[in-house]
Amino acid sequence: MSRRSGVSVPTIKYYLREGLLPPGEPLARNQARYGTAHLARLRLIRALREVGGLSVAAAGAIVETLDRWEQGDLTAHEVMGRAHRAVIPPAGGHSAADPEWARARADADAFVRDLGWRVSEDAPARERLAEVIFSLRRLGHPELLDCLPAYAAAALAVAEVDVAIASSRPDAATMMSSVVVGTVLGEALLSAIRLLAHEHVSATRSDARTAPTGR
Amino acid sequence: MSRRSGVSVPTIKYYLREGLLPPGEPLARNQARYGTAHLARLRLIRALREVGGLSVAAAGAIVETLDRWEQGDLTAHEVMGRAHRAVIPPAGGHSAADPEWARARADADAFVRDLGWRVSEDAPARERLAEVIFSLRRLGHPELLDCLPAYAAAALAVAEVDVAIASSRPDAATMMSSVVVGTVLGEALLSAIRLLAHEHVSATRSDARTAPTGR
Repeated sequence: MSRRSGVSVPTIKYYLREGLLPPGEPLARNQARYGTAHLARLRLIRALREVGGLSVAAAGAIVETLDRWEQGDLTAHEVMGRAHRAVIPPAGGHSAADPEWARARADADAFVRDLGWRVSEDAPARERLAEVIFSLRRLGHPELLDCLPAYAAAALAVAEVDVAIASSRPDAATMMSSVVVGTVLGEALLSAIRLLAHEHVSATRSDARTAPTGR
Repeated sequence: MSRRSGVSVPTIKYYLREGLLPPGEPLARNQARYGTAHLARLRLIRALREVGGLSVAAAGAIVETLDRWEQGDLTAHEVMGRAHRAVIPPAGGHSAADPEWARARADADAFVRDLGWRVSEDAPARERLAEVIFSLRRLGHPELLDCLPAYAAAALAVAEVDVAIASSRPDAATMMSSVVVGTVLGEALLSAIRLLAHEHVSATRSDARTAPTGR
């Protein structure tokens, strides 16, 4: 299983101990058989960790969420909330008494409201947005907040496509797997493409500045 | 400095040992004076680590890059390349002999070429893109690759705005700081807004499905 998944044996044993992987079918005192479901699970954990950049705890929360969804324990809305919480790192512990933090929180809420987006009050992404707004101001780069409208338009277009793709899946189980994998790995995908676009736009702009004729 | 930056004293000592923070002006055997430049640097490191999610090594690479840029050691293009490498986690060590990996690499290159984007052959984001393509197929979710055109359009719009904002800075030093902070924290910003958009689109869609009249 290590060879086929690319995950080392000590790491596999660690995932078994931590409950991320269910135990195999026991064969002898020190041996167990692992099937294709184990291999698929291990590949998912590896992708969430290495490509999605999740911690072991966050990857564990994702696989537990998918298990509970398959057992009928969670609604689709709950699955999405758990996937979001796994993707968003814990907040930095700001004091509600800090006026700069209160202002960032209010600005994040106003941003969502002005867009007319329907987002629950306790969505972790609201706090995350406030944290970025707070940090950009504190770092002396409030001008970077001018990108917010463009980011909102881009994110809405991306989300429409993500949800349409997931909704086109033939059954509820593969749809939810698609939503969760798409949430985590879609971040990595968008990040990579954004960096490619940055290089392209910079290269094109610096050409335009240095071109001898104004074509 | 700990109180004003929100970074604990042991962590500040660690950053001093690792060279992320320059030493203060010595006052006595066990005391040193730290100025506003130290505080600004510490806030930057904190934001890169906590909001940008960078490792200590990656945050260190960013601050070293900004220092070398200020000393005139690096071109703007080199600064951008280093910022990209700091944001992109190290690749998962795929074998060039693996046909699935070769296919993902070729698809990533074809994607950039078909867009007509000018991106250097060794850009780390190319390999990162290939890694996500590879993982989505291996996880049995090739349908998620249907999002690539929409992601490219969104990323291009975002990159145009990012570069325009950075270019509007009054001088080269603040421009480059804006580029680097925007590269790292812009990821967190886009990620948060994408999750907000996901919730909004899902809420709107599930209403449309359950509405008794087909409005």
